[in-house]
Amino acid sequence: MAQPFTIRRRVQFHETDMAGVMYFANYFRLMEEVEQEFYRSLGLSVCMENGGRRLGFPRVNVACEYFEPARFDDVLDLEFRLMRLGTKSIAYEVTFMRDGRRLARGSLTSVCCVESAPGEFESIAIPPPVREALSARLEPAGLSQA
Amino acid sequence: MAQPFTIRRRVQFHETDMAGVMYFANYFRLMEEVEQEFYRSLGLSVCMENGGRRLGFPRVNVACEYFEPARFDDVLDLEFRLMRLGTKSIAYEVTFMRDGRRLARGSLTSVCCVESAPGEFESIAIPPPVREALSARLEPAGLSQA
Amino acid sequence: MAQPFTIRRRVQFHETDMAGVMYFANYFRLMEEVEQEFYRSLGLSVCMENGGRRLGFPRVNVACEYFEPARFDDVLDLEFRLMRLGTKSIAYEVTFMRDGRRLARGSLTSVCCVESAPGEFESIAIPPPVREALSARLEPAGLSQA
Amino acid sequence: MAQPFTIRRRVQFHETDMAGVMYFANYFRLMEEVEQEFYRSLGLSVCMENGGRRLGFPRVNVACEYFEPARFDDVLDLEFRLMRLGTKSIAYEVTFMRDGRRLARGSLTSVCCVESAPGEFESIAIPPPVREALSARLEPAGLSQA
Repeated sequence: MAQPFTIRRRVQFHETDMAGVMYFANYFRLMEEVEQEFYRSLGLSVCMENGGRRLGFPRVNVACEYFEPARFDDVLDLEFRLMRLGTKSIAYEVTFMRDGRRLARGSLTSVCCVESAPGEFESIAIPPPVREALSARLEPAGLSQA
Repeated sequence: MAQPFTIRRRVQFHETDMAGVMYFANYFRLMEEVEQEFYRSLGLSVCMENGGRRLGFPRVNVACEYFEPARFDDVLDLEFRLMRLGTKSIAYEVTFMRDGRRLARGSLTSVCCVESAPGEFESIAIPPPVREALSARLEPAGLSQA
Repeated sequence: MAQPFTIRRRVQFHETDMAGVMYFANYFRLMEEVEQEFYRSLGLSVCMENGGRRLGFPRVNVACEYFEPARFDDVLDLEFRLMRLGTKSIAYEVTFMRDGRRLARGSLTSVCCVESAPGEFESIAIPPPVREALSARLEPAGLSQA
Repeated sequence: MAQPFTIRRRVQFHETDMAGVMYFANYFRLMEEVEQEFYRSLGLSVCMENGGRRLGFPRVNVACEYFEPARFDDVLDLEFRLMRLGTKSIAYEVTFMRDGRRLARGSLTSVCCVESAPGEFESIAIPPPVREALSARLEPAGLSQA
């Protein structure tokens, strides 16, 4: 497997809960942060324009498994992998590492959409320039028709 | 299938994002709110004491599928079902309904733990009184050994 | 002083932090929830249309004082008062009560705006129907020119 | 005035709301992030131990003024200033800059506490080593008795 795209990120106080650990739903926010940094690294954004219309990538499916808790001030390595590139959909996987130990693993599947009206989305084929940029970073055997 | 435990809940402004819809990770917060109301309806809580130690239910596995967006001020019906009751683990499913249409479906799997030190958890068998109360609301065929 | 507009609201688990209390910034979310319920009680919304353009009330000034912590599952009474109604601006105060004890007091000042472009706002005089509905609930001596 | 302690921070997608701008309450989370980085730069933390008891700095007073909205992906410079150092209390100010323009200005006042029981806090004099480290970064004329 290719080297994943990785960012380093500390757990903030406001991301904890009264159990003293990072709140489980906040892992999804961190997944999104590394996703956006990945897009930026390719000269793209999760919020782009396409032919004058706003492009977006609403989630259709997300999941996370938790192995060990992350705590305030922990330094996490967020490893991002582009797992699958369909005609309209994209699937990612994010692994949460701390000092080489895997704390959690999440996945996101998004569909490429244009905003047809404020807050209304219509799925479209991923525009060729976006597709091309993403392809270069796709994990082996990740091309699909979905 | 038995009638699900249901609460009604409006989408708040602070739960939206710049796409004009409820932010995808906030669905997990709503799942937790209906979970806590379900526990309360049984005279329990997601934060209980057991033999002087704090009992908690950290997540080991969560997921959500999104079918249609929820928007600010939408009135959602959150349908909660107790799907599986293992020796130590519990699995829920939450369906997000608006006017009879299903917008999303989520799942949470938690493990019963005691706090052995602040922020440190140790899994234990679900205490008998909790187990008994939950059993009465279990979906058919949901008893397992996990 | 007139009877404040009041809603009852439990503190959720996801609103706590590792100090075991409600996270300080979340008080502002609760202020907004009672604000929206207040608007709804008048047949209004914090998100309205006005002459085909989206009306909004961005904050220009907010503050909160904390006297005692709120904890998970606490039942709070959020008392909302409309303190000042200017030509373009509106000021609220929200008191956080638990069993008759005041835990916190917050304030919000917003300016009435129309969205001139996505994410771009232009301040306008509060439209007459909104102004009229709000006036009826104004605290004594709360009319101003700001 | 001395050079403020500054960190650079992008606005994340999950920090926006349906108005297309950074949600107003999220400014407080960013204030806390720069506060913690400031503490770290002094070899301290907002979560320390003191004589075996957990030290914390609950907020007693916070405020924010908003001049211009911040948007998704904006690169913000968060300028942190230690404004006042009392016997038990500490006051900060954070200025939100983008390309040299001031977007917002916030303030936080915290009181030094030890956790006397889980979720229970008791105010104490700021311990001498903490006090000494902070003093070096105090804005002129910021020493007080509060």
